[in-house]
Amino acid sequence: MATVERRGLKRTNDPDGLRRRLLDVAFDAFQRTGYHATSIHDVMRLGGATGGALHHHFPTKKALGLGVLNERVAQAVEATWIAPVTGAASARQGILDVFDTIATDLERQGGVRGCPLNNLALELSLADAEFRMATEAIFQRWREALVQRFRADRTDDADGLATFVVAAYSGAMAMAKAEQSARPLRACAVQLAGLLDRPGTTTNDSQGR
Amino acid sequence: MATVERRGLKRTNDPDGLRRRLLDVAFDAFQRTGYHATSIHDVMRLGGATGGALHHHFPTKKALGLGVLNERVAQAVEATWIAPVTGAASARQGILDVFDTIATDLERQGGVRGCPLNNLALELSLADAEFRMATEAIFQRWREALVQRFRADRTDDADGLATFVVAAYSGAMAMAKAEQSARPLRACAVQLAGLLDRPGTTTNDSQGR
Repeated sequence: MATVERRGLKRTNDPDGLRRRLLDVAFDAFQRTGYHATSIHDVMRLGGATGGALHHHFPTKKALGLGVLNERVAQAVEATWIAPVTGAASARQGILDVFDTIATDLERQGGVRGCPLNNLALELSLADAEFRMATEAIFQRWREALVQRFRADRTDDADGLATFVVAAYSGAMAMAKAEQSARPLRACAVQLAGLLDRPGTTTNDSQGR
Repeated sequence: MATVERRGLKRTNDPDGLRRRLLDVAFDAFQRTGYHATSIHDVMRLGGATGGALHHHFPTKKALGLGVLNERVAQAVEATWIAPVTGAASARQGILDVFDTIATDLERQGGVRGCPLNNLALELSLADAEFRMATEAIFQRWREALVQRFRADRTDDADGLATFVVAAYSGAMAMAKAEQSARPLRACAVQLAGLLDRPGTTTNDSQGR
């Protein structure tokens, strides 16, 4: 990959690299200030791209937004939630480990930007049907991974519990963002630890619920 | 109150009425499209106000945003959550009734605009310290009302449960908005019904979790 700096812009013969960089800076800007508050010019400047190069990869701001959702937010949910829970010794352990990892990260960073999926879902779900479907699909994959993990543990009501865990985490991150503190995540993890300890939530030989 | 229509604008000698109308239309517009996607011109047009009249009541868009948070969003949380739970026979019954009322409303409306507090908290908490503090204060009043209601029931771990209920509801509304369905609220209500049935969550004579 060869890059030539000229008037502050990077000319490059690595179009895939530019595309990745544009998605990275847009993902970051949407996390910091939201989709509507980020302009195409912000993304050009942050990505070191000309308008023509940006337009080549993402003809519209909406195309960039969908790219961020499908190629960055989905990846973040996969890395943060789906892979750790799928590989954990139990759904309960995986879920509590994720809460702890994220709360510890937030405490170390000293600030909370919130869950990228929830941030964009609340901002964009009503604005546009394609944005809504993209966020719904990511929630769905996240929930389905939890359902599979609960089922592997032979847990009763895997569907309901999976929805509940995604909701509790999503809401805890909203509160954490408003408080700029990991406290709500820690508090919810304690409650989930109790809930997932109940008879019926770890084996299928009771009525559960 | 006397109103004169002129060139589509309302001139009025009822400044309090105009102020209320501006807060109402701004609250509604922020719910539909968000704070950043709503322009001051949108609010002027929807409220039938001149720029001068709007500026008189809200010198800046931020002042309007804070007015909506402190005088409309806080009211909505009070009416939807705090009053029903405070007046309920038990915290458990009050919480389940609120979930049912809101899910039924959404099913009747056939669409989900989401929780006004969470919508604005995620959009504005990082953008501005005053917005963040306003949303944090509303979450805090909501949570505190639940803490008081749990304590009145002599429930163990009133603080933790109150945070958990606010989080589960907030996240369920985010998922409901992405799905455009009340399903996540119904699913979370079933889980909360089970959780709040546990020994220790309705009396203080056990260890709880």
